[in-house]
Amino acid sequence: MSCAFYICMREFIVVGHKAVTDGQFNLNDLPGSAGRMDIMCRCVNSALFLSHDLRRDVVIYLILLGEPEPPKIIKFSGQDVRYLNPDERSSGSLIKKALELKARIRWKESTPGVWVRQGDLEDLLTELNINASEDNEGSVDEGTDNKFYYLHEDGIDIRNQMEGTLPQRATFILGDHVGMTPDEEQKIMDAGAQSINVGPLSLHADHCIIMVNNELDRKNN
Amino acid sequence: MSCAFYICMREFIVVGHKAVTDGQFNLNDLPGSAGRMDIMCRCVNSALFLSHDLRRDVVIYLILLGEPEPPKIIKFSGQDVRYLNPDERSSGSLIKKALELKARIRWKESTPGVWVRQGDLEDLLTELNINASEDNEGSVDEGTDNKFYYLHEDGIDIRNQMEGTLPQRATFILGDHVGMTPDEEQKIMDAGAQSINVGPLSLHADHCIIMVNNELDRKNN
Repeated sequence: MSCAFYICMREFIVVGHKAVTDGQFNLNDLPGSAGRMDIMCRCVNSALFLSHDLRRDVVIYLILLGEPEPPKIIKFSGQDVRYLNPDERSSGSLIKKALELKARIRWKESTPGVWVRQGDLEDLLTELNINASEDNEGSVDEGTDNKFYYLHEDGIDIRNQMEGTLPQRATFILGDHVGMTPDEEQKIMDAGAQSINVGPLSLHADHCIIMVNNELDRKNN
Repeated sequence: MSCAFYICMREFIVVGHKAVTDGQFNLNDLPGSAGRMDIMCRCVNSALFLSHDLRRDVVIYLILLGEPEPPKIIKFSGQDVRYLNPDERSSGSLIKKALELKARIRWKESTPGVWVRQGDLEDLLTELNINASEDNEGSVDEGTDNKFYYLHEDGIDIRNQMEGTLPQRATFILGDHVGMTPDEEQKIMDAGAQSINVGPLSLHADHCIIMVNNELDRKNN
């Protein structure tokens, strides 16, 4: 199936600078002792849920940088995930289960559709670039590779930026409540990301994800 | 201050058909025994939160129709609300406090910016229509009254519907996971609501609220 004129795969990356990295956290205190894990939970909801359905073409990566074992990455795949409900405790519970595993450098599945590995933003960007190159091998289409977009207030309006032929894969990178560090921003730019925004006001990451999904829904329709 | 060319006030109404109506519910089980109260909590977040700020021009009404004392309405005002954080437990906790009060036919404030009263959708639509008429008394502008919009898959795209001069107040009405009953739809239509949608796919109420806020942010900018 040709994907030259629409996106087949959407990926979101959210960096949680304080989000804890073991499974000991309390589901009753996601914003506090779990290091604003509530933000990560809402981003999972925003990325994957439709009304009475899941977005099977979406993957979301949570980069957790809090104590005691940073950095770790958790991956939710809309295609494969099970036992996920829209509430924060539900995604929090699946994150907790993933963090109870001993994470290594390779992905390990904790529950269906949820994986965990050691790694940081740079590791993930490298992996996604490599995967995209492999996916694209032998393709005769131009402009169907993976494209990276950095959600940032100073970016170009998504309604203008994503016109024309869309990539086979699009990866959207977002910070949490503290934004990105200069070092992280540099890595994002090194990956060739374009800066986009979703509107005139500064919004939470989970709200931005909803706007991105909507914009792509409209273009794919 | 003239409001002829932009909206001064945004209101959201969400109907929770199963959401419980006393303060005995468990904050650890918002989706279950609290009757999908998690949906109501996320709608409060979507309506009121900006990054590091609150939307002071937004009011959200939750119509709760579950047992044991239906119907009740809870109002959150972005202008006045205190002690509200973005996580579901935070809004759930303020809803719980409001439901612990003895509700009567008039609004009673439970915590700053949160009120509760007895009443259903029809009562609220009547109240908002009356308030809008009072606000508009003596106005020389046309088309600056309250306008009602019903979020529905079969509605007209919000990007087309809300062009031109915007009303002083706009009220957006949304159903929960079970949608509206035919009787509720009739009352919404009787109030003069226009049906709008926010995109090609069916979304959760809290996601729709984010889209509406964004569209109005863009028009006000």
